[in-house]
Amino acid sequence: MTVGTVRSGVTAPQGFKAAGVSAGIKTNGLDLALLASDSPAAAAAVFTINRAQAAPVTVSREHLQRSGGVARAIIVNSGCANACTGEAGFQVAQAMAADTARLLGCPDEHVLVASTGVIGVALPIEKVRSGLPVALRALAADQGSFAARAIMTTDPFPKEAAATMKIGGREVAIGGMAKGSGMIEPMMATMLGFVTTDAAVPKALLDRALKEAVDDTFNAITVDGESSTNDCVLLLANGASGVTIDASSYGAFLDGLRDVCRELAMGIVRGGEGATKLVTVNVTGAATAAEARTCAKAIANSLLVKTAIHGGDPNWGRLIAVAGRAGVAFDQSRAKVTIGDIVLFEDGTPHDEHAPTAAEYLKGADLTVGVDLGAGSAASTVWTCDLSAEYVRINADYRT
Amino acid sequence: MTVGTVRSGVTAPQGFKAAGVSAGIKTNGLDLALLASDSPAAAAAVFTINRAQAAPVTVSREHLQRSGGVARAIIVNSGCANACTGEAGFQVAQAMAADTARLLGCPDEHVLVASTGVIGVALPIEKVRSGLPVALRALAADQGSFAARAIMTTDPFPKEAAATMKIGGREVAIGGMAKGSGMIEPMMATMLGFVTTDAAVPKALLDRALKEAVDDTFNAITVDGESSTNDCVLLLANGASGVTIDASSYGAFLDGLRDVCRELAMGIVRGGEGATKLVTVNVTGAATAAEARTCAKAIANSLLVKTAIHGGDPNWGRLIAVAGRAGVAFDQSRAKVTIGDIVLFEDGTPHDEHAPTAAEYLKGADLTVGVDLGAGSAASTVWTCDLSAEYVRINADYRT
Repeated sequence: MTVGTVRSGVTAPQGFKAAGVSAGIKTNGLDLALLASDSPAAAAAVFTINRAQAAPVTVSREHLQRSGGVARAIIVNSGCANACTGEAGFQVAQAMAADTARLLGCPDEHVLVASTGVIGVALPIEKVRSGLPVALRALAADQGSFAARAIMTTDPFPKEAAATMKIGGREVAIGGMAKGSGMIEPMMATMLGFVTTDAAVPKALLDRALKEAVDDTFNAITVDGESSTNDCVLLLANGASGVTIDASSYGAFLDGLRDVCRELAMGIVRGGEGATKLVTVNVTGAATAAEARTCAKAIANSLLVKTAIHGGDPNWGRLIAVAGRAGVAFDQSRAKVTIGDIVLFEDGTPHDEHAPTAAEYLKGADLTVGVDLGAGSAASTVWTCDLSAEYVRINADYRT
Repeated sequence: MTVGTVRSGVTAPQGFKAAGVSAGIKTNGLDLALLASDSPAAAAAVFTINRAQAAPVTVSREHLQRSGGVARAIIVNSGCANACTGEAGFQVAQAMAADTARLLGCPDEHVLVASTGVIGVALPIEKVRSGLPVALRALAADQGSFAARAIMTTDPFPKEAAATMKIGGREVAIGGMAKGSGMIEPMMATMLGFVTTDAAVPKALLDRALKEAVDDTFNAITVDGESSTNDCVLLLANGASGVTIDASSYGAFLDGLRDVCRELAMGIVRGGEGATKLVTVNVTGAATAAEARTCAKAIANSLLVKTAIHGGDPNWGRLIAVAGRAGVAFDQSRAKVTIGDIVLFEDGTPHDEHAPTAAEYLKGADLTVGVDLGAGSAASTVWTCDLSAEYVRINADYRT
């Protein structure tokens, strides 16, 4: 690390440079981010499972297939999702990658593409083209925080994270940036995550690590239960640290990767549209891990739970009601509901006398609620935010 | 029908009397409804599938089993759900039925019980007991509208409906009342529906008719995607018209029953918490009827769709995005989105030029949106309402 530069987020690992510039796609502000590795990096990706997929998702998926999982750069624009834009939109996404590849001197398929913003509106390729040379000139190891800002839409703040670990006595770094203010916000946001590491990671291990890390982090958050046309998390490993991950160091690498992904994911929830509180939902006593996750997601997406928490109302009955309708094994006579560590319902009996203490606890901004289903021993944790009138205003008034 | 009386809702069919009185369970207003048939009626019921079930649901279910599907009366209180109240709550629900049975001179199991209101709070049986004799004195064929008011919680208006039909040259009436302002509002509402008919209907046909009618009406509405501990729809058929329904008249009877249930169900949505618009969601082109329903429900529950409609924003991209994530067969290149009869997306191509016309249409209060999945020929219709900041206020501030 050179004195005088700050290598944050995606540029924390060695051998990565980034830039965030304004190309005029948004009315104002940074809207074009370029992330480049000094050398071809092993690349892993997780894409939206929405059956309506945006052009950049299709292009990135094709490029990863053609390259066999190798990438030099990622080009990202905000302000336009380039989704549901037909054949013309597909050609624009291809052109973004091709133009970036030409400037960097690498094959087209070594460039991945992502877009985020309004659905169904054409992405002006000439604006991307005018911004690309500016981004190339700005590209540097201390510009990660500008890239993190350039991918924002309704996000109230940028999301960056980094972790370092010693593997075989040498330092390995993992860095990342993300955007998203709804879990998925099909109209104007969607979640994007970009993670880098200077470890060398064999493709099979890299794919596995990303899948495992995402499952407990990006896939364990929800703001509004929506799921976008543009979602993706891309992970690049360029080996610049000289450390190669193998079976013996996989666990340490995965822990670091999960830490970075979790910090980014929790940042998305904390900055959720209209959010005033971060809520950790712990479901325990489930028959299976899948049921625990299903129930935790149902609670995290319940409008009644989210509005009660917004209002500071220790309304444990809503938690029981959601657990009961979540379609999972549930024994009301053995169930338990906690807010913070305050027990409000246990073994079929309400403890409404603890409601005032719970109401006091709910004045905080970082909250935990727990439901034990009384049906087994599996558990799951999911993060969500409260639902405020501001959420409605943001989403009702966006284009009007 | 006697001159000078108005037989509305549940008392539209012959041989039914009702009353709505104030028993002091709520701070003010009517809160105890009694519905009685002059003679034992065949009874059918549909209960919540929430695994957390309130005491009155358990008691009504047991009574229907013991009586073999016969009932004389239904006693309903608002202001307290008597849910998650343990063994004590179960005894209160039993006592409500037993006290009503004693006053009417019928077996306990001929009385069904329903409650609606706050979860986890004890229902004061002494208040029910003090209200029962008052209700018995008020019981009359022109008091249906008072009963409809006595079952309300956050409902902005009472929901009553009635239909008559000629079967074999004789008139048969079907009447009903319902409450609910969230599809289910576990904290303070939940949906209750009570339907009466003076036809004689064999138990097997009655069960089948209720199931079929509910599926396309009460089960096809959503306000907030929640599902309560107290939901039930009860149907009583007392035969007072002298007409017996058989296989040949089943279709006409079902049509009338469905009309009554649909009117009540749409009333619930129109009076949904914070609602300003009634939205009919039509999904067509689905691979199966079940997938059509799944997708229609996903659209009807989407926060982004509901807020866009609230804001009058013809945001068709949100409809496509939900259809894509609904887990049903979906062909983006053949899909179509309409708002009213205005086409905004068709065969992979946006028609954003129609957005101003659609925005004008969205200023109305009774709206239709359509998504054709391009994957088959099955269809489904679901009713929902918009999501307003008022919804958040109602649910965030309820107990505080």
